[in-house]
Amino acid sequence: MKPATVIESTLRVRYAETDAEGVVYYANYLIYMEVARVNYLRALGVDRGIWGQHGLGLVIAEALCRYHAPAHFDEELVIRAWLESTRRSSSVMHYEVVHKESGRLLADGHTVQVFVDLKTMKPAPIPAEVLEKLRAAVGGRQAE
Amino acid sequence: MKPATVIESTLRVRYAETDAEGVVYYANYLIYMEVARVNYLRALGVDRGIWGQHGLGLVIAEALCRYHAPAHFDEELVIRAWLESTRRSSSVMHYEVVHKESGRLLADGHTVQVFVDLKTMKPAPIPAEVLEKLRAAVGGRQAE
Amino acid sequence: MKPATVIESTLRVRYAETDAEGVVYYANYLIYMEVARVNYLRALGVDRGIWGQHGLGLVIAEALCRYHAPAHFDEELVIRAWLESTRRSSSVMHYEVVHKESGRLLADGHTVQVFVDLKTMKPAPIPAEVLEKLRAAVGGRQAE
Amino acid sequence: MKPATVIESTLRVRYAETDAEGVVYYANYLIYMEVARVNYLRALGVDRGIWGQHGLGLVIAEALCRYHAPAHFDEELVIRAWLESTRRSSSVMHYEVVHKESGRLLADGHTVQVFVDLKTMKPAPIPAEVLEKLRAAVGGRQAE
Repeated sequence: MKPATVIESTLRVRYAETDAEGVVYYANYLIYMEVARVNYLRALGVDRGIWGQHGLGLVIAEALCRYHAPAHFDEELVIRAWLESTRRSSSVMHYEVVHKESGRLLADGHTVQVFVDLKTMKPAPIPAEVLEKLRAAVGGRQAE
Repeated sequence: MKPATVIESTLRVRYAETDAEGVVYYANYLIYMEVARVNYLRALGVDRGIWGQHGLGLVIAEALCRYHAPAHFDEELVIRAWLESTRRSSSVMHYEVVHKESGRLLADGHTVQVFVDLKTMKPAPIPAEVLEKLRAAVGGRQAE
Repeated sequence: MKPATVIESTLRVRYAETDAEGVVYYANYLIYMEVARVNYLRALGVDRGIWGQHGLGLVIAEALCRYHAPAHFDEELVIRAWLESTRRSSSVMHYEVVHKESGRLLADGHTVQVFVDLKTMKPAPIPAEVLEKLRAAVGGRQAE
Repeated sequence: MKPATVIESTLRVRYAETDAEGVVYYANYLIYMEVARVNYLRALGVDRGIWGQHGLGLVIAEALCRYHAPAHFDEELVIRAWLESTRRSSSVMHYEVVHKESGRLLADGHTVQVFVDLKTMKPAPIPAEVLEKLRAAVGGRQAE
């Protein structure tokens, strides 16, 4: 099985992202996933300029995050993102949030994103030029 | 089947919570769930004062959100929360985010929360006085 | 001197708003000011529906906050807002953030907001119907 | 006059940071300032490990931001930070937020930070080893 294209994003935990337990607040992992997702699409040469031309938007239909260990202020995190699958209008992206220094897995999860017609907000086919790039990137999970 | 205790929280979308598509940014639904979860526990007479006495913390192990329709600035939302189940150290809470005026379901999801020993950060039994209240609140979903 | 119209907003600190020092993160006070500002304008019968009809937007040109004492998770805060002055296209709003239970002043500050033409993004005159309401609300600070 | 040490931080606007007007929400500039401030102190070899040893915390007493032009999703911003002055327990840091590609000034402002005794939360003298580094960095604004 062809390995999936995995794109890594590195970021440093901001103080704003911590909570009173001294760890990154749980909702902020969805922001980290967004950063990774945008970087992933950019690496594939896909951005909202392209799908915007087609009158499309990209909306999140589902987000899941499992929390394994906490992240703290000023720690560097690596977010690995890869595409598990694409369909007519939707795709599934997976994420792993890893503590950079130790390599420890802190969280993982997925999002389902759907292309929608911005006039009707109903699912619309992924534009051909985008679909081609997404399909080329989809694959089985790389052996670690 | 005994119906679950459902606690409703009402809030108004802040401008800070919107994004460039003019809708509530997806990560903020986890904040809405937090608001609902805190209100839920308060309604049951349970708060971190109680479990803190036992040296325990309450951490989120998993969060899922499905997005059905967007929320906009200044709209009032109702978040319904109920407990689906409790175990030795964990519990599962469900949520529905509803547009107050129209009653339309905008999002739903769940969180898994785990009581942990704050020294070891390992799962610890739910204190008896908390467990009793959680168990009394667990139930099947109320008929709508 | 005529006292200014003071509108109070009450909110409860969310866990998401705290940071690793166990207090409300400093940027979130600008969100509290936004909540108070929106409530203030609503109380005056002014909202973006009105100025949007005129092709105008309301942008913040300056924000200042002084922090006197910290706020903590689950505390109720009262944010008092009042208009200090209005000009051709701008106005100055003042805020006090008070701990509800103790009455202690936690923070104060101001924002300068400017009406802009959404096409040019340049300052534009405040629409007459809005200006009239703002002017009626401006005044000296009420004696405490 | 000796020029101040200026430290530049570069970041890319996250979708989470935008609002319904399609621009960066005003409170998020205080987060950008925090990122720049932390980087600044790191560049000077100063972090909370050092002042924590002395039982001190660093709190923000005042924040001001002036907004000149909007920032948008995915734009790269440069935040320049420099120290204007230090006193017995406090210091004043200035910031400029610049659009990286065009060099356009988007916002500027300052923060006042105060070292406090974590037991009493009252201002405490800046530790000597920290003060020395801060003083060496203070200066007049560099000619642009």
